[in-house]
Amino acid sequence: MRTLFEQLHDFLPADAVLLSEEAVRPYECDGLFVYRERPAAVVIPETLEQVQQVLKFCYTHKIPVVARGAGTGLSGGALPHKAGVLLSLAKFKRILNIDPVARTARVETGVRNASISQAVAAHGLYYAPDPSSQIACTIGGNVAENAGGVHCLKYGLTVHNILEIKVLTIEGELITIGSQAFDSAGYDLLALFTGSEGLLGVVMEVTVRLLPKPAAVQVVLAAFDSVINAGSAVAEIIAVGIIPAGLEMMDNAAIRAAEAFVKVGYPVDAAAILLCELDGSPEEVEIQIQQVRAIVEKHQASEVRLADNERQRLQFWAGRKAAFPAVGRISPDYYCMDGTIPRKHLPMVLQRIHELSEQYGLAVANVFHAGDGNLHPLILFDASKGQLHQAEELGGKILELCVAVGGTVTGEHGVGVEKLNQMCVQFNSQELLQFHAVKAAFDPANLLNPEKAIPTLHRCAEFGAMHVHHGELAFPELDRF
Amino acid sequence: MRTLFEQLHDFLPADAVLLSEEAVRPYECDGLFVYRERPAAVVIPETLEQVQQVLKFCYTHKIPVVARGAGTGLSGGALPHKAGVLLSLAKFKRILNIDPVARTARVETGVRNASISQAVAAHGLYYAPDPSSQIACTIGGNVAENAGGVHCLKYGLTVHNILEIKVLTIEGELITIGSQAFDSAGYDLLALFTGSEGLLGVVMEVTVRLLPKPAAVQVVLAAFDSVINAGSAVAEIIAVGIIPAGLEMMDNAAIRAAEAFVKVGYPVDAAAILLCELDGSPEEVEIQIQQVRAIVEKHQASEVRLADNERQRLQFWAGRKAAFPAVGRISPDYYCMDGTIPRKHLPMVLQRIHELSEQYGLAVANVFHAGDGNLHPLILFDASKGQLHQAEELGGKILELCVAVGGTVTGEHGVGVEKLNQMCVQFNSQELLQFHAVKAAFDPANLLNPEKAIPTLHRCAEFGAMHVHHGELAFPELDRF
Repeated sequence: MRTLFEQLHDFLPADAVLLSEEAVRPYECDGLFVYRERPAAVVIPETLEQVQQVLKFCYTHKIPVVARGAGTGLSGGALPHKAGVLLSLAKFKRILNIDPVARTARVETGVRNASISQAVAAHGLYYAPDPSSQIACTIGGNVAENAGGVHCLKYGLTVHNILEIKVLTIEGELITIGSQAFDSAGYDLLALFTGSEGLLGVVMEVTVRLLPKPAAVQVVLAAFDSVINAGSAVAEIIAVGIIPAGLEMMDNAAIRAAEAFVKVGYPVDAAAILLCELDGSPEEVEIQIQQVRAIVEKHQASEVRLADNERQRLQFWAGRKAAFPAVGRISPDYYCMDGTIPRKHLPMVLQRIHELSEQYGLAVANVFHAGDGNLHPLILFDASKGQLHQAEELGGKILELCVAVGGTVTGEHGVGVEKLNQMCVQFNSQELLQFHAVKAAFDPANLLNPEKAIPTLHRCAEFGAMHVHHGELAFPELDRF
Repeated sequence: MRTLFEQLHDFLPADAVLLSEEAVRPYECDGLFVYRERPAAVVIPETLEQVQQVLKFCYTHKIPVVARGAGTGLSGGALPHKAGVLLSLAKFKRILNIDPVARTARVETGVRNASISQAVAAHGLYYAPDPSSQIACTIGGNVAENAGGVHCLKYGLTVHNILEIKVLTIEGELITIGSQAFDSAGYDLLALFTGSEGLLGVVMEVTVRLLPKPAAVQVVLAAFDSVINAGSAVAEIIAVGIIPAGLEMMDNAAIRAAEAFVKVGYPVDAAAILLCELDGSPEEVEIQIQQVRAIVEKHQASEVRLADNERQRLQFWAGRKAAFPAVGRISPDYYCMDGTIPRKHLPMVLQRIHELSEQYGLAVANVFHAGDGNLHPLILFDASKGQLHQAEELGGKILELCVAVGGTVTGEHGVGVEKLNQMCVQFNSQELLQFHAVKAAFDPANLLNPEKAIPTLHRCAEFGAMHVHHGELAFPELDRF
């Protein structure tokens, strides 16, 4: 007598179905290692029809399905369901079409983010969103999480850089969402799907927008003796109307960790550094570099460096891009948060994070997209000393702080399983019910990536947090900022 | 014995309820005059609580509700339901908050588009989306239709320029969607609502993004002896990486009509003119003006003009902005279409529209957002000679052509009642069913603006058009382009 999951062999090749404990183990977590679960089965189909059959099978037998790209996600969005099928899309890695005139590329869901830019480089084009994991993460995962990156400030998130997707519903029906044109008719299901964390359907194909590679790129590295001054410089750069290609800040803890790791000559005594990248025509870039230099000097930058050449520019970025693994070297464990706040509250929120860090006795290194207010506090802890719970609690407090100042619990990593409780803080029950109604419009049996992204009202009641709505909670003690 | 609608007096002031035939007549159509319907009642509430009561009343008694801003829409989105309530939001015109640091403004739904820019002008800021109707249309209507305008090419549609909305559901519950930050958690209901044409809820309050007014603005007017050359110039301007603040084209019929009306000195013998506006720092604008001039000259522009001063710049635009009423002067009636196509197909589509115009014996004037491929063919006809049906049929063919080349049936005017049949061409039944499921997630009783935007499968079956999916229909005879 075969088990239910052995029936997957009826329509999939032998090597496309993994059922043994050892075989499924590599899929037990994604980039958020603290959550692990072994799925009942892993399937690795290689044709659209096979994916359709898997979905129809799961739909018929009411089996949960979790889709997985490269498994680089940081919120547990691809954490398997123990009674379900883990659907790996790793074999869908063909680039189907490049149209250099329309500046689009049509690619399968498992194509790596960085592969797109490589494939279109000969046409002088590139794909703008650049999550730190871009050499590994897939476009399907990027759509599921609405991935961002350093260049989002100027070029937008994933949702701003895709035109059309082909999606399989839980019933295995193929639907096309969006269009090749500037806008499309009907409800904006393209935006609805983007960032829906695999709860509404399975993305199979994506048509992305491409951009011409800028003629000139330059980066300014400015060091500051005070985080507040660095924050003021950010505010003024934006205020004068400059839109940098990237505008990143690192605090002292992050600077030291990065420098110890990649040794690019960062000023290790600075309280903060700003990396401000400008791109465009050589003339535009030259003008903006001068403007940025004047602004950071006005805000008392202790040092200003310009990259002399492309190699040095990449070095300036190397520390920033290696910040997460760099922190990993100096702490047994770290926990990366991802709140987003209105930019004007940066100094206040950084100060409050510092206070929380002292209160919990856990160091926090800050590396973040200053230009768009997307924070990535890295909480340093040691799980072997039982500090995981403390780190999670501190992380939760930071996210609640983000909501309290009018921000949100996720910038680009998604909610996944990690931030379910904080969703109870951000949304009231009416809003959560509306999210569930949207889910039911696509997946009434709740089979696609269940128990992720949107908490049940029951869970929120158990969590018991006060709903802190959109900046309405005052922090009187912080009014001094 | 009072009628059902007389019960509206129980919770609304006397002058906020219109029931007589004469009183409701001014509300019988919006900007698409060819469709008219008198509602059973018009209500003009002035508080949020009154709107909640109206919605609860309609929900309880299963009465259709159609919300209306300024009634300037061009697709019949605010056409009343004869058995329903027309909900005017005209009294919600307060600007609630302006935050010049965060660069946001929070306004009530009935605030006029142009009023926002006026209110924030003292801070050097403005609200970018600029539909032609901007002196009259309201922000709530803009959200419902995802309104565009000349400046969308660079600054995006309404959806790209709003952060947060407060919405009443059909049950009268107030929910907040979006956040004050760069991104927000949960499904992207903000994008879903934007352009949902009043079918999902009633927008009551909008937080818009503001932009700093550019330091310099200049416009190039280039005339061409051939529409194809003008189209090639558009393609090259975009290809070199310039993003104009506006890039508009008018063909000879539109040029002549506009010049006869506003007398700004347009070259009336030109086959087409391009208006290319550039904004930014004075240095950037100067560089780009030279680039654009070189490109249009390369593509054999017969004449190139630069505005000498702000008065002349506004004159260059005056003809474009008056194009619709100008056409209204030379033809008893006109019908404005709103298809969007991938930019690269512009020459082919313009040629095909010309052929269709000859086939139907109806002149077509073309005025459009060339930069983003959003066409506005104006079909000239005489309803008194029974030509309305012909005009509608020709319009339908043009929209089907847009779909066939991979475009969409609406750029910025919405589907409303006008383009329901063409939605059957654009979407297959699975996709339409998904749209209906989303509608049901918000409004299961189908009371909010029913019979708009998304056709029933029954209607599509009656219309009988072939489903032409996303550019998959070939036009072999047009391959020469």
